[in-house]
Amino acid sequence: MKQFVVIGLGRFGFSLAKTLYELGHDVLGIDNDEEIVQSVAESITHAVKADATDENALKALGVRNFDVAVVSIGNDIQSSILVTLILKEMGIKYVVAKANSELHGRVLKKIGADRIVFPERDMGIRVAHNLTLSNILEYIELSPEYSIIEISALPAWYDKSLRQLNMRTKYGLNVIAIKRNGNIIISPNGDDMILRGDILAVVGHKDDIENIEKHF
Amino acid sequence: MKQFVVIGLGRFGFSLAKTLYELGHDVLGIDNDEEIVQSVAESITHAVKADATDENALKALGVRNFDVAVVSIGNDIQSSILVTLILKEMGIKYVVAKANSELHGRVLKKIGADRIVFPERDMGIRVAHNLTLSNILEYIELSPEYSIIEISALPAWYDKSLRQLNMRTKYGLNVIAIKRNGNIIISPNGDDMILRGDILAVVGHKDDIENIEKHF
Ligand SMILES: Nc1ncnc2c1ncn2[C@@H]1O[C@H](COP(=O)(O)OP(=O)(O)OP(=O)(O)O)[C@@H](O)[C@H]1O
Ligand SMILES: Nc1ncnc2c1ncn2[C@@H]1O[C@H](COP(=O)(O)OP(=O)(O)OP(=O)(O)O)[C@@H](O)[C@H]1O
Ligand SMILES: [Ca+2]
Ligand SMILES: [Ca+2]
Ligand SMILES: [Ca+2]
Ligand SMILES: [Ca+2]
Repeated sequence: MKQFVVIGLGRFGFSLAKTLYELGHDVLGIDNDEEIVQSVAESITHAVKADATDENALKALGVRNFDVAVVSIGNDIQSSILVTLILKEMGIKYVVAKANSELHGRVLKKIGADRIVFPERDMGIRVAHNLTLSNILEYIELSPEYSIIEISALPAWYDKSLRQLNMRTKYGLNVIAIKRNGNIIISPNGDDMILRGDILAVVGHKDDIENIEKHF
Repeated sequence: MKQFVVIGLGRFGFSLAKTLYELGHDVLGIDNDEEIVQSVAESITHAVKADATDENALKALGVRNFDVAVVSIGNDIQSSILVTLILKEMGIKYVVAKANSELHGRVLKKIGADRIVFPERDMGIRVAHNLTLSNILEYIELSPEYSIIEISALPAWYDKSLRQLNMRTKYGLNVIAIKRNGNIIISPNGDDMILRGDILAVVGHKDDIENIEKHF
């Protein structure tokens, strides 16, 4: 179990704090909006109203003893930077900070943030891919070169085995899972059949993924 | 190529619009903030300043002819709902709407939104999982039951083949990719060796994923 402090309980910060708590960790949430503090009180270990740009307030809360701090202040860029700086100066080993823009992210990195996250940007990219083809149900980036997509099985594939379809040779794609009626077959083998209504999770190089997109 | 209209060019809406454009689609962006409209003009097909709660303004822009509309208005929940309603009444087939909360999402669904997205909530969940164990580098949900995680190879695994490690039987996990020196080996086979510094992407049931987490 680790001790996390999450500063700024907007949509991102709150969801993060709640999930950490549900995963069994100790979570202190800080926000300077009293209403927000009250509404999250039940979902995390502790919720406190404080202005995180006030170093003494953070000290009084014992923030320095936490393993990981997350700064999820969005619109007030100045506060986000100031709070990140204070946390690093306090000696917190791992500080994660949410950035609004590339520039904001670069500043956060410079002042010592250990990890920068861009929730809206990353989700925008992901949803864009998900929307471009109706048969592509999910798009997940594994690396700049490789992705996973989830696709509905084409009628031409129904009642054929993966061996018969031979997607690895034909399309450069590997089927890592088949979703069927709410169940999932992980790492199917060559004998597994594709049925009507199946959803395939496939992994492959981006070029190959783009090629398969043309079949839809 | 499809025609997308994105209404509300905040961080999420802008990133989505830009990605769609980069994927080769026609993208009309609408925002009622002149400054924002100017700053995105180069990144998408067209950017227009308009109040999207004004039905006549949307009609004048020919919005009804678009294939997909995305409503990415965040804080002004009333506008987000009104705009979604107008778009569905205009007859747009597929309307995606960003929600602030579960309740907001339920209202959007009721008035006809075809898909609801919760970018901050979903990213909060994802980053929380990524943070809980330092050796877990990525956490991607495939279904409520199955996930992909990326883990650094443990020293005990170095210079062993996947067959020797036998992770499927031992841990119920399937290695779907090995990342090594910026390259990636997709669907490795039993002969592939794990080397120091390798990162493994593995897929498995959540219970098995939780079990492996205890080894770190
Ligand atoms: N100095 C501060 N100290 C403590 N909390 C703060 C401070 N400044 C802002 N906050 C809180 O941070 C939270 C998140 O900020 P804001 O709403 O600007 O970010 P956001 O990026 O729009 O969030 P999201 O999109 O995740 O909802 C708010 O609840 C706000 O009250
Ligand atoms: N009625 C409207 N017509 C057009 N644009 C609007 C309207 N209302 C709000 N917007 C625009 O929608 C954009 C996104 O809204 P807002 O910043 O409240 O959302 P958000 O959820 O905080 O966004 P993000 O977190 O993705 O940055 C803003 O740029 C705003 O100008
Ligand atoms: Ca907010
Ligand atoms: Ca905002
Ligand atoms: Ca905004
Ligand atoms: Ca946001």
